[in-house]
Amino acid sequence: MNENPILEIDKLIHEPARLLIIRHLSLLDSGDFLYLLAATGLSKGNLSTHLQKLEKAGYIEIKKRFVGKKPQTILKLTELGRIKYEAYQETMKKLWQNSSDT
Amino acid sequence: MNENPILEIDKLIHEPARLLIIRHLSLLDSGDFLYLLAATGLSKGNLSTHLQKLEKAGYIEIKKRFVGKKPQTILKLTELGRIKYEAYQETMKKLWQNSSDT
Repeated sequence: MNENPILEIDKLIHEPARLLIIRHLSLLDSGDFLYLLAATGLSKGNLSTHLQKLEKAGYIEIKKRFVGKKPQTILKLTELGRIKYEAYQETMKKLWQNSSDT
Repeated sequence: MNENPILEIDKLIHEPARLLIIRHLSLLDSGDFLYLLAATGLSKGNLSTHLQKLEKAGYIEIKKRFVGKKPQTILKLTELGRIKYEAYQETMKKLWQNSSDT
């Protein structure tokens, strides 16, 4: 019955901080935690919380490794995350297109 | 400190159902409740709740009148609502532009 895809939008992606995180990851093969921290302007705690939610949903992968003696956290969009983000973008773009059509 | 306007986005507008309502009202001088009901695909209760929130924030005006014997509820974006929606659109458009730039 519901013809408005915006009402079915993926709220995991729609949340502003997560939208920003996913947008950055979508532009990269992978990014590390410190890069995302700088790129988004989120606090460490906030960024961690959002990353964990996205990992739990299977939208991103979180890998830890050492570069010399320094631990590094690498984030990457999964195939599922990429598909979901593309669907989200499609819906949002249609919304703006319809705005100027009508 | 926060350079990402998306993190400061107006959540009153960002919520999908309200975004849809405001988008429809932004295209009209004013619209009645039944029109919005059909245009959005929301339930009556849901639509009412969202309209009340938007009225409380001063983003829309709700006026009731009679057309013959039938009551009619007329909704209209206020000047504040229009300004807020334009600011919201600006931020979102920049987000998509940056996506393809970077």
